[in-house]
Amino acid sequence: MGSSTGRIFRVTTWGESHGGALGAVVEGCPPGMVLDLDALQRDLDRRRPGQSRITTQRKEPDRVQVLSGVFEGRTLGTAISLVVFNTDADPRAYAPFKDTFRPSHADFTYEARYGLRNWQGGGRASARETVARVAAGAIAKQVLRELAGVEILAWVDRVGDLVAGVDPDAVTREAVEANPVRCPDPDMAAKMEALIKEVRREGDTIGGVVRCVARGVPAGLGDPVFDKLEADLAAAMMSLPAAKGFESGSGFGGVGMRGSAHNDVFINKDGQIRTATNHSGGIQGGISNGMPILLSVAFKPVATIFKEQDTVDRAGRPTTIKPKGRHDPCVVPRAVPIVEAGVALVLCDHLLRWRAIRSG
Amino acid sequence: MGSSTGRIFRVTTWGESHGGALGAVVEGCPPGMVLDLDALQRDLDRRRPGQSRITTQRKEPDRVQVLSGVFEGRTLGTAISLVVFNTDADPRAYAPFKDTFRPSHADFTYEARYGLRNWQGGGRASARETVARVAAGAIAKQVLRELAGVEILAWVDRVGDLVAGVDPDAVTREAVEANPVRCPDPDMAAKMEALIKEVRREGDTIGGVVRCVARGVPAGLGDPVFDKLEADLAAAMMSLPAAKGFESGSGFGGVGMRGSAHNDVFINKDGQIRTATNHSGGIQGGISNGMPILLSVAFKPVATIFKEQDTVDRAGRPTTIKPKGRHDPCVVPRAVPIVEAGVALVLCDHLLRWRAIRSG
Amino acid sequence: MGSSTGRIFRVTTWGESHGGALGAVVEGCPPGMVLDLDALQRDLDRRRPGQSRITTQRKEPDRVQVLSGVFEGRTLGTAISLVVFNTDADPRAYAPFKDTFRPSHADFTYEARYGLRNWQGGGRASARETVARVAAGAIAKQVLRELAGVEILAWVDRVGDLVAGVDPDAVTREAVEANPVRCPDPDMAAKMEALIKEVRREGDTIGGVVRCVARGVPAGLGDPVFDKLEADLAAAMMSLPAAKGFESGSGFGGVGMRGSAHNDVFINKDGQIRTATNHSGGIQGGISNGMPILLSVAFKPVATIFKEQDTVDRAGRPTTIKPKGRHDPCVVPRAVPIVEAGVALVLCDHLLRWRAIRSG
Amino acid sequence: MGSSTGRIFRVTTWGESHGGALGAVVEGCPPGMVLDLDALQRDLDRRRPGQSRITTQRKEPDRVQVLSGVFEGRTLGTAISLVVFNTDADPRAYAPFKDTFRPSHADFTYEARYGLRNWQGGGRASARETVARVAAGAIAKQVLRELAGVEILAWVDRVGDLVAGVDPDAVTREAVEANPVRCPDPDMAAKMEALIKEVRREGDTIGGVVRCVARGVPAGLGDPVFDKLEADLAAAMMSLPAAKGFESGSGFGGVGMRGSAHNDVFINKDGQIRTATNHSGGIQGGISNGMPILLSVAFKPVATIFKEQDTVDRAGRPTTIKPKGRHDPCVVPRAVPIVEAGVALVLCDHLLRWRAIRSG
Repeated sequence: MGSSTGRIFRVTTWGESHGGALGAVVEGCPPGMVLDLDALQRDLDRRRPGQSRITTQRKEPDRVQVLSGVFEGRTLGTAISLVVFNTDADPRAYAPFKDTFRPSHADFTYEARYGLRNWQGGGRASARETVARVAAGAIAKQVLRELAGVEILAWVDRVGDLVAGVDPDAVTREAVEANPVRCPDPDMAAKMEALIKEVRREGDTIGGVVRCVARGVPAGLGDPVFDKLEADLAAAMMSLPAAKGFESGSGFGGVGMRGSAHNDVFINKDGQIRTATNHSGGIQGGISNGMPILLSVAFKPVATIFKEQDTVDRAGRPTTIKPKGRHDPCVVPRAVPIVEAGVALVLCDHLLRWRAIRSG
Repeated sequence: MGSSTGRIFRVTTWGESHGGALGAVVEGCPPGMVLDLDALQRDLDRRRPGQSRITTQRKEPDRVQVLSGVFEGRTLGTAISLVVFNTDADPRAYAPFKDTFRPSHADFTYEARYGLRNWQGGGRASARETVARVAAGAIAKQVLRELAGVEILAWVDRVGDLVAGVDPDAVTREAVEANPVRCPDPDMAAKMEALIKEVRREGDTIGGVVRCVARGVPAGLGDPVFDKLEADLAAAMMSLPAAKGFESGSGFGGVGMRGSAHNDVFINKDGQIRTATNHSGGIQGGISNGMPILLSVAFKPVATIFKEQDTVDRAGRPTTIKPKGRHDPCVVPRAVPIVEAGVALVLCDHLLRWRAIRSG
Repeated sequence: MGSSTGRIFRVTTWGESHGGALGAVVEGCPPGMVLDLDALQRDLDRRRPGQSRITTQRKEPDRVQVLSGVFEGRTLGTAISLVVFNTDADPRAYAPFKDTFRPSHADFTYEARYGLRNWQGGGRASARETVARVAAGAIAKQVLRELAGVEILAWVDRVGDLVAGVDPDAVTREAVEANPVRCPDPDMAAKMEALIKEVRREGDTIGGVVRCVARGVPAGLGDPVFDKLEADLAAAMMSLPAAKGFESGSGFGGVGMRGSAHNDVFINKDGQIRTATNHSGGIQGGISNGMPILLSVAFKPVATIFKEQDTVDRAGRPTTIKPKGRHDPCVVPRAVPIVEAGVALVLCDHLLRWRAIRSG
Repeated sequence: MGSSTGRIFRVTTWGESHGGALGAVVEGCPPGMVLDLDALQRDLDRRRPGQSRITTQRKEPDRVQVLSGVFEGRTLGTAISLVVFNTDADPRAYAPFKDTFRPSHADFTYEARYGLRNWQGGGRASARETVARVAAGAIAKQVLRELAGVEILAWVDRVGDLVAGVDPDAVTREAVEANPVRCPDPDMAAKMEALIKEVRREGDTIGGVVRCVARGVPAGLGDPVFDKLEADLAAAMMSLPAAKGFESGSGFGGVGMRGSAHNDVFINKDGQIRTATNHSGGIQGGISNGMPILLSVAFKPVATIFKEQDTVDRAGRPTTIKPKGRHDPCVVPRAVPIVEAGVALVLCDHLLRWRAIRSG
């Protein structure tokens, strides 16, 4: 349990940071689709380490292989097996910590749950598991695009206390990818990059917020009461490493508003029922309303810092720890494609669920 | 689909606001437990309308009946069927809106999804569906208490821009229930109550934040990577009516921190491994670490306001709408037991999941 | 767990034989359908006790109530809650056996699993639980009929060693319902009825076989490799009380055949690809091929007999037992609508699953 | 959907007969177990083609690799990824049939469902998919053995009309593996082998029955009403390629018995509650009763025969077909480890489910 998500478009991921490989099995992909492997690799490249100076320097080409479910370039409707082999795993760097619990990592909790852990690079708890999500998510993106014209776009909205000014209706992929921070507000991006570099020099880390818009989502997706679209999106986002907060539409900011200001008035726009504002973030009663879906994810500062910290060992004896090596001073630039993938998996599953019960 | 949650402790709810009844089927409850029906009714009473001057005045006794799964007072291990009949349903009040989409309600999205809707009081989209969650959640609370000594306690932390000062380690049920706002900070509770009354006089509504602590949760609950504890908690909370935001531990506030300040240092406290701080909110790597689990949920101002608003009808023609009758000016006081129930359902399911795979 | 079935058309049942009521929650029913409550009651009437001289004489009107999911006669797309209240429960008849394990009943195994049991009439293990299946199955039948023109028809094919001669392509509901045995071979039906009466006089019971055909099932239903149509049908049938065997198409009889005789040659019949024979029973590779689906279910002689039998009590002490009261001398006449319901639930779920992934 | 099974011990398989590889992802395996890779390979060897003169001559070493979930030889509790690469795939042999539907294969139904198919060797519909089941099942066997002392043993009970005489209480693995037919009745095994060779010479095939016993299963496994042990076992068996029938305990043979003869009388055997006979096949009310679980599976004659047969092509035009190459004249000798694996997956899942809810 725990390594699968989705009900119809169902994805199972596996793999440890320093095991042989990572992968995903994708069930429920509609058959007959010409699988766009380049797009899949492109998203993996956006996620992979070492792509810019402000991310971890682990060298992983992250080449994806398709072992089943595709024939002569087309999806068969059967389970698609995706594999990415690890190449730059260096378990020795972690040997000093194999009996010590790194603060705010999952070392202690994995031992509490399983009685043992792969101490090499975080094992299953490493952010490296998101390789599999991104690969599967790229397939979901393609299904969404081909069946419903949906486009999903995420960006860095905040680093530390630096908040970008971004219009979610106008933002483009080009603007996002124009800088290594992946913040489409160029001035703020420069400040964010400077802050990340400063934090890196200190051997420290800083948090951030990724914001994401999904455009073209048809009205009618979501399955109340437990599988409301916001519930499934929240789960997808809060299952990402380092995620500590989720907002849909107005989020925590909407709390201070009066209902008369917050309500999204319906209008007739060129024959389509739309809302004049979008505090609902494209979702009402757990179901998409045809407006852009808008959400944010808060990521804490990652736990790997190059400073001496107090901790205990497996026997509970006080000790100190000071990691060395490679780290991400701020996780959000690389989290952008990961957030997109997570959103895509949810929307794709709900699109197929909706096809099952709709009339006609 | 969509009306069930949980994998082992699995709950299926049903019922419309103005249909005959609402209910829940609870599967996976451990057998042989003396079911505390009084506790169950107590939580329903905390949730029911009309309990104070600052909530909706609908009169519903919300008496729960157990139709199966219990024999001579004990749980049988078979499915438990819980039913609450509606008594004060007044569908006529909603007749004027049956062809009009109320802004920020789910009228439009239910029609987009299903092609029709029960227009009486919101139907399945009404907050009244949470009756079933609270009833099932009370059973989950009992399982958690008896099997693991877990205690779950929620309170109102914010109304509009009024933020309470509450120590999550010290807060008690008595302090929460001491005032109709369910805010354990008495001074702020008085201000919140005044604000809610003001908003009600205006025929308007206001948002709020409910905060929740779960104490005594054993280390080791949570099922990475998709069923991390935070993911399942986020889904449970974001599936609640009017929820727009979720935080675990430091949440959005942690974004501005450095890792060196945010990391929770491990300590040995009387032979138990604990953390000195709890920015993680009791969860690391998606698994509980034995510290109190701490989360917050943002609720938007509810959509029913007694002011004239622009909207469209089913044919897309512009019109106006001005509801009458009963409403909740601020949803959070009654959301307190609902949040507790949702948290209980998740923790109970994960407690049973953990028992399945643990050694011994 | 255990009380739910189906992935999209998902049914959860609950209820004990002598508890207050039995019921089902049906999720995933397509919205907007005018629910045929008469058809639902008709199937319950075919299942209910006391309908003929050769079944149990318990008096239960088995009137079904719909508590949610239907509005102004139409399905809402939300969960449909069905309830049937017990009226003729007589727990006192079972009091003598509350500490004794009746041979080949589930008394011992329920205690082994749950540590306690509702000893009144078998509790959850009673065949009375199939009330809920039949009610839910009637909705599934309607969905199948309206969306795909599928017709499901079962009959008694064997009682003891008496085997009927029935042409599955020609058999009609009228022929099945023409006699209390529900065997459309009138001569054999008379012999079967005589045998059942003889067995009843002896205070004994006898087994039987129900055969079922589903006509009009479109080619393409079934989800290899684990959710092959035959796998899900087998599970549905083997989950029925007293079921001990399942056959699809040629079943055990096909074992003795050569492949050259067993293979179903494809033909072009009026522009449709069909098979000349139907040893496959309408399913190849786990997927329907458009031919009639054909299956059989073996039911053992029911365990309640009015003869003295050796057994042990809860403490393991040898004792004897001799039940009194009401029983079914042969379960298969009443099993006919139950088999149909079970088949309908599986086919309806697979029809909706297929709609989710098919192109267009 | 469709490629996963189990709720807690959850297995997802993938792979086509002539794709790059086949594999399984195993979730829910208890952590800390020293994984017996040799046992895993041994079962694969018993399943693989070319192992005797009476099976297909395809040469596949079927070496299994573990890509995740195991660390320093022990299970981590995380998802275990198993892969077997195809080496002797010869797609050219199938090219003549790519536009023709082979009778009683899944060619037509896969096209009906998915609109296309991998025509190379049956693709996903090939019996080669059972490689993944056997690999995963070997892990399940180990869990069952270590946690509960369960032993699972299958054998060939019938080939064509030749029926073996085997005592399920006494049969041993050595007796089963003593001959290539895997029938522990040596005289009958010799006749069966002769029959299979005769059938092979004719270019034809013949069906068979595999019987399986599970010893040491604790009383209390099974989850009524839908996940009764017999239901899940039936689904597992009927999801196997070429399976057409399933029996538990007395099966179809019990139909002709009176209840007074069929009932299994309870006895006290050395302080344990047991039954004097075992017509129930170790399962009562869908729950194991501590007696040996006993089941049979009927396999039809496989569809690949080397005789000219009528059929149609994709356009529905009549044509003929005459396959060449390699085939299994009788599938049951190789089905023995496959049946064992399927039974193991079900029992292992139910063992873990039972641990979740049991008291203590």
